Amino acid sequence: MNFLEEKILTDGVIKEGNILKVDSFLNHQIDIDIMRQMAYEFKRRFRTENINKILTIEASGIAIATLLGDLYDVPVVFAKKSETANSTDDKYVAQAYSFTHKKMNNVFISKPYLHATDHVLIVDDFLADGEAAHALIDLVHQAGGTVEGIGIAVEKGQQKGGGELRAEGYHVESIAIVESMDWQTQTIKFREQPAQPLQNTNLRSI
Amino acid sequence: MNFLEEKILTDGVIKEGNILKVDSFLNHQIDIDIMRQMAYEFKRRFRTENINKILTIEASGIAIATLLGDLYDVPVVFAKKSETANSTDDKYVAQAYSFTHKKMNNVFISKPYLHATDHVLIVDDFLADGEAAHALIDLVHQAGGTVEGIGIAVEKGQQKGGGELRAEGYHVESIAIVESMDWQTQTIKFREQPAQPLQNTNLRSI
Repeated sequence: MNFLEEKILTDGVIKEGNILKVDSFLNHQIDIDIMRQMAYEFKRRFRTENINKILTIEASGIAIATLLGDLYDVPVVFAKKSETANSTDDKYVAQAYSFTHKKMNNVFISKPYLHATDHVLIVDDFLADGEAAHALIDLVHQAGGTVEGIGIAVEKGQQKGGGELRAEGYHVESIAIVESMDWQTQTIKFREQPAQPLQNTNLRSI
Repeated sequence: MNFLEEKILTDGVIKEGNILKVDSFLNHQIDIDIMRQMAYEFKRRFRTENINKILTIEASGIAIATLLGDLYDVPVVFAKKSETANSTDDKYVAQAYSFTHKKMNNVFISKPYLHATDHVLIVDDFLADGEAAHALIDLVHQAGGTVEGIGIAVEKGQQKGGGELRAEGYHVESIAIVESMDWQTQTIKFREQPAQPLQNTNLRSI
């Protein structure tokens, strides 16, 4: 069991409706030690990838993206969900359904901040049906860039996002994958993961 | 001229309506080197304060808050602007008008993440009329905590927020204070700041 799975068992709360509440350490209050360990773990798991930009979506992905930007010493970009008064730049726009807010969101990035030369590591706190991840991939592709990997803190393994993204050929690394959980007994089962990741998207270069 | 003022002159864009656009390095794309320098500069300026929590508001304050949490090795909390489906905790709630989105926002923090024992450094990317800062102060006070300081990347010195907060006795440190700017000539004037901050909120302990 890794540090994040242990933290989830200790401080996570399972709620009715397949909800795992981790806002005491991940997406409202931020446990900086857990965040640091996540950043180093992503860097280890994506060590075969050549990354020159970290991409996430506001708001809860920004903390881990910032620590990863610090580790890799590369720029961080966060996609935005709402138009702001002072934003008149040309934008790449994609759509994503938010289960948290129960509505379709436009997700956008101003064109100057994504390029065809970008080798992007996408990171986010949660992966469920893959709506946000697919929107971010779409934005990178609109710019002609390359998605080198997708790093997720907590993947809901019962939902379709992770399976779809891996089937599409993306290098997805989730630090904790929830296989099943039960709010009545407050029990949770994680998917076993190899100690060293077996995935290697460099196979194409052999 | 400090590193942030230089960066604003190089990469900032002044737009009609008193808008300073810094989204190439501060609040859409994040220049990690600038963020790191900001974190160290805040730590230097608030060196007389005893801080055990970093507080900000989603979304653009999260990056600098995370690096400060990393430096201080303390938890980070970000106040939220919208209710989420899985949030049924008791909350502290305050209100803030957003000029960016031109509406009143409820700003809230779940009660477990703010305490009477908290000595809080509030950080944000911008300070204009002080709406967000006052909402965050209100939340800290509702919990019975202490605001030890308010760290701002860019203060709009022509607007009332900074003056009001200082008059109320808060230790406010803004790395760049815009005294005036002109979108037609793309010129900007910064307020002179002492190389070593003169403010010392520990006067009460002498």
